[in-house]
Amino acid sequence: MQTLWAERFAQRTQRMKSSAVRELLKLTELPDIISFAGGLPAPEVFPTARFAEAYQAVMDKVGAKALQYSTTEGYSPLRDLIAQHSTRYGIRIEPDNVLITNGSQQALDLIGKVFLNPGDHILVERPTYLGALQAWNAYQAEYITADTDGDGYVVESVKTQMRSGPKFIYALPNFQNPSGVTMSLERRHALIDVADHYGVPILEDDPYGQLRYEDEHLPSLVTLDSQFRSTDGAQYSGNVIYLSTFSKTLAPGIRLGWIIAPVEVIQRLVQAKQGADLHSGTLNQMLAYEVASGGFLDQHVKHIRAVYRERRDTMLAALDAHFPEGVTWTRPKGGLFLWLTFPPHMDATEVLKAAVAEKVAFVPGTSFHADGGGRNTARLNFSNATPEHIDEGVKRLARCLKQLLATP
Amino acid sequence: MQTLWAERFAQRTQRMKSSAVRELLKLTELPDIISFAGGLPAPEVFPTARFAEAYQAVMDKVGAKALQYSTTEGYSPLRDLIAQHSTRYGIRIEPDNVLITNGSQQALDLIGKVFLNPGDHILVERPTYLGALQAWNAYQAEYITADTDGDGYVVESVKTQMRSGPKFIYALPNFQNPSGVTMSLERRHALIDVADHYGVPILEDDPYGQLRYEDEHLPSLVTLDSQFRSTDGAQYSGNVIYLSTFSKTLAPGIRLGWIIAPVEVIQRLVQAKQGADLHSGTLNQMLAYEVASGGFLDQHVKHIRAVYRERRDTMLAALDAHFPEGVTWTRPKGGLFLWLTFPPHMDATEVLKAAVAEKVAFVPGTSFHADGGGRNTARLNFSNATPEHIDEGVKRLARCLKQLLATP
Repeated sequence: MQTLWAERFAQRTQRMKSSAVRELLKLTELPDIISFAGGLPAPEVFPTARFAEAYQAVMDKVGAKALQYSTTEGYSPLRDLIAQHSTRYGIRIEPDNVLITNGSQQALDLIGKVFLNPGDHILVERPTYLGALQAWNAYQAEYITADTDGDGYVVESVKTQMRSGPKFIYALPNFQNPSGVTMSLERRHALIDVADHYGVPILEDDPYGQLRYEDEHLPSLVTLDSQFRSTDGAQYSGNVIYLSTFSKTLAPGIRLGWIIAPVEVIQRLVQAKQGADLHSGTLNQMLAYEVASGGFLDQHVKHIRAVYRERRDTMLAALDAHFPEGVTWTRPKGGLFLWLTFPPHMDATEVLKAAVAEKVAFVPGTSFHADGGGRNTARLNFSNATPEHIDEGVKRLARCLKQLLATP
Repeated sequence: MQTLWAERFAQRTQRMKSSAVRELLKLTELPDIISFAGGLPAPEVFPTARFAEAYQAVMDKVGAKALQYSTTEGYSPLRDLIAQHSTRYGIRIEPDNVLITNGSQQALDLIGKVFLNPGDHILVERPTYLGALQAWNAYQAEYITADTDGDGYVVESVKTQMRSGPKFIYALPNFQNPSGVTMSLERRHALIDVADHYGVPILEDDPYGQLRYEDEHLPSLVTLDSQFRSTDGAQYSGNVIYLSTFSKTLAPGIRLGWIIAPVEVIQRLVQAKQGADLHSGTLNQMLAYEVASGGFLDQHVKHIRAVYRERRDTMLAALDAHFPEGVTWTRPKGGLFLWLTFPPHMDATEVLKAAVAEKVAFVPGTSFHADGGGRNTARLNFSNATPEHIDEGVKRLARCLKQLLATP
């Protein structure tokens, strides 16, 4: 018997599918399984000692204020710190351009809340970040997809899709989740150009930008947009909203991300956040500030890079050594993920079933395709397993694949 | 010059007004002002020492796990604790009936996300909680209001409004924000009856239920609904969703509230929360569990009651002693607020202007009226000022009122 509440959501014309990643994460809790499925940072790199000192410092400095309500915009010193960190990449960001969110997932949700009407189109990469689709499905968004290759968005494909009149372009230029691909500098310039030409703004999602393991940092879209407008020395007020997070550089359990946007946009997002949850945790923001300040953040990121670089290298070496012909993969320059492409006739969900029997897990690629494609693709995470487990897990997966390829 | 992003929100057909409370909170930051405007708990009652012990305990027990991603539903021991606390009021709640949210403001937002289509009607009290209206305005809800008196919802008025087909009935039965009114037991029974008769579910918001300063605890609507269905010993699966929070009993800065609902409803809300922010802070949930467990919560609530009872009594005594004839007020049995009614010709916003000049602040009542009424009403908070300040603040306000009443 349905309750009246259950009848009420049956009346709601929405699409909220249970997440494949979510269901799979349950599998990864089984003992003995080596999971490349999640997107978890390695808990070994969390700066727990620094957090303990920060807790003490916060309590000594502000005491009960750390447990009180605080402003929707976020803790001022933390907004300052983020603005300063952003400024060093050659763009003038003031604290008023920064809104603190509960992880960048809430940033995606607030963007949906402020900008989307039911049926609005969003241009996304093929493949794209699953969590963004989950956030915007709640606002009954529709998606149009553009092709990507080893350099990110294929600009000709983006142009073609402009005819559908997207509300905005969603882009993950650095070490994309799920593909691991980085958008080249040329493509970044071209995307800014196209967006300006068609009058469509860009949402840049950059959770992994600091986690680069080779080559030089590339300027973000928000920086390029600022240069494009050549508003020398003026506060940022362009056509790119930029999202990032402390989840991959400090810790995800404190749920702190941020939005950088023109002031008038921030003001609207603040109103939306006020209705959504009043503000982000006061204690968590003060802790993050104490942990990150005094140069610790940069120093700690270097440590994380070293740990994850080794894991990425281990995974790539194991794939090179053990994987059968016909399977290909990306070679990410940073981030947490790489992307497998199986032969066209293979279904990644079938591979997963076999893999779980062999005690190894990953995420099939369809979840990351807004257009339902990607049946023969898969995402592997390399941040959350030790090098030994990565090597062993890849061997297990290679065995599965060889067996499946040998079966007619 | 508008950015493309600003043009985009201009296209969005939404109503998000800047909050009057929000703007007023800025005034309360002025030096020397005695503010009855906010809804802040007294920081003096925050158990900071217990939090410090809890931080140590969490780190000793789970270490880095406290900083990692965690499940959307919430930290299991905390869901257990909430289920057990709820069960003692004579209703069977299992942990599966509990979803942890970022304060109960997020609970209101998730309810909107899962249940509301643009233009849906919600039945609210006149006056009602401003934050609920802010949460649901984002989903383009419409409101219908029913009359209230000193015993809460006037049931005949609720019946009349059922013709407008509300999606649900929103009720704050205990020491309502803003009015301080408590719904009588008879009215609670009658509301359950009417809701069942018309097939409209109830959303019960109960942030202050534990903060009663006189008389006995009254059963919540969710408990009465369970008895009404007389599903003896069965897990709760009725027509009331119940919301509460740790913001008033532990501390608001950790942003932890919860939803109690039938399991199938919780599952839908979990999907919505996953898209909204993945999960609530891991560390905060573990801290709250450590702080609240072992009987501390009940013991601490007794302390808060004693502190706030004195403040309420001080405010009522000062109103009795100093306020001019023609102004009336409620005598709340708990909570944080009482409600003023000025003579019909007075505008509370004009009173506020005069009051701020006298260095005292409150919130005009119109913000709490979904139908735009309440021009001559106001909310006073008594939890966030010391008894001395309360007495002085009421004297200042009385001076203003006498002056305004003397002016023809």
